[in-house]
Amino acid sequence: VKRGEGLSGFPEWLPEQELVERHILDTIRRQFELHGFGPIRTRSVEAVEDLMGGGDTSKEIYGLRRLAGDDAEGESRIGLHFDLTLPLARYVTEKRGSLVFPFRRYQIQPAWRGERPQLGRYREFVQADADLISDAPLDHHADAELIGLLATTLQQLPIPPVKLRLNNRKLLEGYYRGLGIGDIAATLRAADKLDKIGESGVGKILDEQGLTGAQVEKVLAITRIEAARPANLARVKELGVEHPMLSEGLDELGHVLGVCQEQAPPEMLVGALHIARGLDYYTGTVVEGVLRDHDDMGAVCSGGRYDDLAGGGKQKLPGVGISIGVTRIMGLCLHLGLLKQERRTPALVYVVLHDEEARGETQAAARALRERGIPCVASSAARAYGKQIRAAERLGLRYVWFPARGDEPHQVKDIVSGEQQEADPASWRPADEAAELRFVE
Amino acid sequence: VKRGEGLSGFPEWLPEQELVERHILDTIRRQFELHGFGPIRTRSVEAVEDLMGGGDTSKEIYGLRRLAGDDAEGESRIGLHFDLTLPLARYVTEKRGSLVFPFRRYQIQPAWRGERPQLGRYREFVQADADLISDAPLDHHADAELIGLLATTLQQLPIPPVKLRLNNRKLLEGYYRGLGIGDIAATLRAADKLDKIGESGVGKILDEQGLTGAQVEKVLAITRIEAARPANLARVKELGVEHPMLSEGLDELGHVLGVCQEQAPPEMLVGALHIARGLDYYTGTVVEGVLRDHDDMGAVCSGGRYDDLAGGGKQKLPGVGISIGVTRIMGLCLHLGLLKQERRTPALVYVVLHDEEARGETQAAARALRERGIPCVASSAARAYGKQIRAAERLGLRYVWFPARGDEPHQVKDIVSGEQQEADPASWRPADEAAELRFVE
Repeated sequence: VKRGEGLSGFPEWLPEQELVERHILDTIRRQFELHGFGPIRTRSVEAVEDLMGGGDTSKEIYGLRRLAGDDAEGESRIGLHFDLTLPLARYVTEKRGSLVFPFRRYQIQPAWRGERPQLGRYREFVQADADLISDAPLDHHADAELIGLLATTLQQLPIPPVKLRLNNRKLLEGYYRGLGIGDIAATLRAADKLDKIGESGVGKILDEQGLTGAQVEKVLAITRIEAARPANLARVKELGVEHPMLSEGLDELGHVLGVCQEQAPPEMLVGALHIARGLDYYTGTVVEGVLRDHDDMGAVCSGGRYDDLAGGGKQKLPGVGISIGVTRIMGLCLHLGLLKQERRTPALVYVVLHDEEARGETQAAARALRERGIPCVASSAARAYGKQIRAAERLGLRYVWFPARGDEPHQVKDIVSGEQQEADPASWRPADEAAELRFVE
Repeated sequence: VKRGEGLSGFPEWLPEQELVERHILDTIRRQFELHGFGPIRTRSVEAVEDLMGGGDTSKEIYGLRRLAGDDAEGESRIGLHFDLTLPLARYVTEKRGSLVFPFRRYQIQPAWRGERPQLGRYREFVQADADLISDAPLDHHADAELIGLLATTLQQLPIPPVKLRLNNRKLLEGYYRGLGIGDIAATLRAADKLDKIGESGVGKILDEQGLTGAQVEKVLAITRIEAARPANLARVKELGVEHPMLSEGLDELGHVLGVCQEQAPPEMLVGALHIARGLDYYTGTVVEGVLRDHDDMGAVCSGGRYDDLAGGGKQKLPGVGISIGVTRIMGLCLHLGLLKQERRTPALVYVVLHDEEARGETQAAARALRERGIPCVASSAARAYGKQIRAAERLGLRYVWFPARGDEPHQVKDIVSGEQQEADPASWRPADEAAELRFVE
């Protein structure tokens, strides 16, 4: 790291890009709140032993060390969280007596992983999570609620279409058990690598794990099933494997898929039986979403059902959650050249300063517009009008306001149409589309 | 740090408290945007040598270390930022060619300092900053713009009254020079300790620094001046010290105080000549705000003018900024028992589930309300109506919605009034005050 140089994996956007990210975050938040999910914010740090607790050290945890510290509290006993699920589980365990269940919360915060940066993978990234945690047994309606929320939210975002792939851990586990496989977790982890290493790669791992050729073939066979409709899940039964857990998982997946497809374009959700999601804590429904036309670029959202994550040592609290990778979405859309827009400020109006003596008029006009909710920049320098209009253009602003002075009334110039006309700051409104952030496809 | 235990200095709020924090953050952001300040978000980390660059190591920087890293990139070469000003300066330096000047930006993010936690002082805390940075010389109108923005924003917040104390570094420096003092910075640092160690403590330090008794008395004399109006600053002249920089500082302070007092209650802003602000980078106007009736609890906001912070090695870019300590405000208000409110969710309406067969009706009613912008929780369990109403009450919700079924029309119960009546999900609206967050004084 040299002074003043960019740090790989720690992206920073320009103001006009940040406006788009804020719009995405606001839209997600709005949908979460409309559905009755409330905000929490957890601290950025967790005890390192909690972070390591999942056994999955591939998260590349950043430990913290006080540079000027006396080290009485020890080094690196705290580290930055690598997701928002583990902090949620800890928060719910700590504050259980003060929460109302079912607890619906959302959380929009950065997380950190010291992984090698690449397209769509960052060391610091913003996640937008929603979870429902219950203190009583949860049925699959909760899964449908959360995945429905995910589908509804994604449809509101100004991004390319997302395809949500659903599966169910019970379905996979029951299927593996029905095949007589012993180490279910190892088989799941191998199957989860399909997108990266292909069928031959997965087959090789399974072979090394001691599966028979017939077992390997069956494990691969189910990954090939993609069900556009719940009825298509019947193809699983044609594979001739039977287990009660398989039947239960099939029922759940069919139900969740059916309910969610009613709330979304029919092609948005599919049953995709190769989806395992690597995280160990999922116990039922799992989902991941990819950009439909760029499905090689990795998941932009994910989620699933967990029965044993929260609650501490005592009674476990079941839950289901979703997570939208906002920084990854931003990175992919910028990479694809999809997010371009002209405004570099939230303001809509540039209020001209006639000359030094007219500061009062400029301030009064700006105040009148702001009181009516119209954001504006008040010019701070009494330069030639052409230069002030040019300043407005460079900010991507559409309107230039000339405050009243003496007998001259207020006037407003629309830079797009070129028209300039009298206007009253107590009643004038910008065009509706001027307030929208423009996305270029 | 034990698993599952709170970490001192890393506060976390309950959902009902977080709703208040979100309201505070939204209000700040709204005011910043109305004034034409645009959002940016900088990475949480900076090069340690940049963080240390100010020479002020008292910030207790947290260095980062990849626990599973190969250390090829070295340990602790990056650390968490301790404020949002240094990151802004670095961001502007890096992206200067892509920004439009004057650059008005706001930034609402956490920062970290490994200090000893106490009331109002945290190791992780959220700051809300607004700054204006120019690529041309900046006059005091910019100072008035930012401090006016601070005063306007604070008036919108649901917190006790804040008193803003203004001063000017040129005024102090000119005064010290006029007294013949050599080490201006040392004198400033000593004077800045007045609130903590009193006049005798400051006097002792100045004495040790070699100031004469007459100089010490004059340095203390100016700290006693508090000017409720710009005209009262004339008391400085009665101290009989003269220096061109003193006159310039007095003029600036008088101007900024006068302009800002027009936008705020007259008692909100005062000239307070004991305010120095410890940070070295301020070069003119400085401001700090305290809760008017609790001024012993430390500053809840601060700001000032800097001429040499941004721009890198080449031409320096002058700027002026303000910073609101949101976590400190939350901590003080919770400590004072001021922030209590009943809603534990952003939702306003609880939609009942009649029975398992009626899930469609519940979903449809909830969807109709949400499409009209009314947030609601859809009940997930078909329990007795009394239990569902009790669930709404525990969430602090005011309305319980009974979806239409068969010949029965929709009905809504107002828990506050106890009334229950027919309602149409396509036109019903909650009372305006139901959407407000309630603050108890």
